[in-house]
Amino acid sequence: MNSPVLRAAPEDRDRLARIALHELFEPGDRRIDALLAGMSPYELFVALREGGREDDLTGARADIAPRLDRLRPDRTLELGERVGLRYLTPEDPDWPRRLDDLRGRPTIQERTGAPLGLWVKGPLSIGLLDRSVAMVGSRDGTHYGAEVAGGLAAGVAREVPVVSGGAYGIDAAAHRGALAADGATVAVLACGADQVYPRSNERLLTEIARTGAVLSELPPGEHVTRMRFLGRNRLIAALTSGTVLVEAALRSGALNTANWATALNRVLMCVPGPITSTRSMGVLEQLRHGRGMVVTRPEDILELVGQSGEYLTEPRRAPETQRDRLRPRHRQVLDAVPLGEPATAEAVARRAGVALASVGIALVHLERYGFIERCAEGWRLEPEAAT
Amino acid sequence: MNSPVLRAAPEDRDRLARIALHELFEPGDRRIDALLAGMSPYELFVALREGGREDDLTGARADIAPRLDRLRPDRTLELGERVGLRYLTPEDPDWPRRLDDLRGRPTIQERTGAPLGLWVKGPLSIGLLDRSVAMVGSRDGTHYGAEVAGGLAAGVAREVPVVSGGAYGIDAAAHRGALAADGATVAVLACGADQVYPRSNERLLTEIARTGAVLSELPPGEHVTRMRFLGRNRLIAALTSGTVLVEAALRSGALNTANWATALNRVLMCVPGPITSTRSMGVLEQLRHGRGMVVTRPEDILELVGQSGEYLTEPRRAPETQRDRLRPRHRQVLDAVPLGEPATAEAVARRAGVALASVGIALVHLERYGFIERCAEGWRLEPEAAT
Repeated sequence: MNSPVLRAAPEDRDRLARIALHELFEPGDRRIDALLAGMSPYELFVALREGGREDDLTGARADIAPRLDRLRPDRTLELGERVGLRYLTPEDPDWPRRLDDLRGRPTIQERTGAPLGLWVKGPLSIGLLDRSVAMVGSRDGTHYGAEVAGGLAAGVAREVPVVSGGAYGIDAAAHRGALAADGATVAVLACGADQVYPRSNERLLTEIARTGAVLSELPPGEHVTRMRFLGRNRLIAALTSGTVLVEAALRSGALNTANWATALNRVLMCVPGPITSTRSMGVLEQLRHGRGMVVTRPEDILELVGQSGEYLTEPRRAPETQRDRLRPRHRQVLDAVPLGEPATAEAVARRAGVALASVGIALVHLERYGFIERCAEGWRLEPEAAT
Repeated sequence: MNSPVLRAAPEDRDRLARIALHELFEPGDRRIDALLAGMSPYELFVALREGGREDDLTGARADIAPRLDRLRPDRTLELGERVGLRYLTPEDPDWPRRLDDLRGRPTIQERTGAPLGLWVKGPLSIGLLDRSVAMVGSRDGTHYGAEVAGGLAAGVAREVPVVSGGAYGIDAAAHRGALAADGATVAVLACGADQVYPRSNERLLTEIARTGAVLSELPPGEHVTRMRFLGRNRLIAALTSGTVLVEAALRSGALNTANWATALNRVLMCVPGPITSTRSMGVLEQLRHGRGMVVTRPEDILELVGQSGEYLTEPRRAPETQRDRLRPRHRQVLDAVPLGEPATAEAVARRAGVALASVGIALVHLERYGFIERCAEGWRLEPEAAT
């Protein structure tokens, strides 16, 4: 039972202890943060191995016991390096500072706390995620959902990295959109970062790792479990400046990510869909309860995650017409000029309910700008201006 | 120039003066409210006719001059009665009190103020609109918009009247939905309440007038103008407890109604649609700026317009599964039981990261509830429980 952690050089001990703790505890185990508040990773590892203390470390010792004897963090590190993973810890300058927000946060579905470290595959500097956008949604998103996720992700990724979960459906559409725009994209997995899950996203994950990053807090070789998806979702929300929810049924893992975003004071952005679509129900329910902001364009998203005033979007307006630029009294007169039979100025004044003197001025103005024409019998609309 | 107003019996003077003022001023003329603050309708009528005063009544006298000589309010009243209209004034017990909120409100697109009276066709007591819902939207709504407007209106109309503008598209779908549910529905027109506009909604308008009401502040015989639509929209918003916006492009009269609802402190309710639909753009833009509440069901609408606690809707939730009811530690163990080859309790404990003693208890519990089965080599998932 002579662990390589105990044999490690003093400067490597904490790092190796973190890797060992990853293997002993499930991601987001609520005890980790509390235990690490009082000791270093190395000290915690020693305390867990040495049964002598009276404190049972909140039951942790019993839970990790079945895993202790197979523990080989040195081999895990070797394996990780062999498959092209680097291991980041909070001591690393490239560590994403946003993850610190997970400390002392509420527990959602039994997951909580900051990760011990991250296994990363791919060239992207993870520190850049300080300004990034998560985009998540249903695994079985609709054609509509995939289309809008791809379009929004493409627009966002031109400015900041797009983070998602590498899953089917909306996740994949978001990654693909970002890649299509030559933008950075990051997949956060619920298994080892060397694993391919789901299988059929292999080419997509390979491409993400080639240009952006695939990352996980789970050691290489580890498989997905339901609980690990929940732990993974907290990382997606925590790593990013805000989360965009594209499609989610009332029961959807994407809502778990949305809840994390809200709990972490990240902006939650919702892409509405038809109220008749079960896939949009979970998104609309968030909006109904005032938990998210409506976004419909990449600019809307960038405005919400950018620094104040950095990305300002214009409200969407219909283009102004020549008619819009008329004074209200002139519009009122224009309304009273008939399309067919011409009308006298007196008749126009009566129809409009405007003083005859004003009507006279308005008619001349309206003629000059091509809205109406004068003829022998009076005034009538220019047919082209009538619409 | 001896007006029938001047000849009327003292008790009929104000009523007839109101009808005359309707014919002289366009609906929502911003001067009416101000002028009526200092005098009765009869006094105002007299002041307008008699040129002697120095005050030009804010230009009103000049504007109405072209209409003065054709004024026959007694004939208008006769005509109204002949075509089955009744004329309501604020003195009437059935007068909708909500209209008083229009006094002193901001001007939207040059329209403002309370109506002088209402011409009503149909058996519905207009006072009932005190609790009612407006539903408006695009004239060229999509199939989606018409479908959801009809469904929502049907559900709402089982409880309170549904008010709309009698137009094509969303308006017509809302009226039809309410009629289909045998609910009350009211069309507010931008022409005389005896007119049929648009033409092809004739059967619909007839049916509304047969069971609910068609109303307008314009005298019978009057035609629509662009400005009158704006005046009409203010009435739809003012008459009702809240306005539901179903579909609206960025340029849409329905947005004018929505603005009125907001200006009058009525609740604005928005029915989202696809972000790719130009017909939903105006609705989503309202939501993006926090000006409306998302509604997806009739219950949502009734909850927002009902009195506090009168209609309480449950949040939409997916049905709870047996798995949801498991304790988190038991779910964690269940996650670690394989589907194919059975696993020993020790292997399950290792995979789950849960103490062996707890795993033993959990496995027995999970077996009892049919999630897993015990076999000679250990434990495996019940195939049916695996999903």
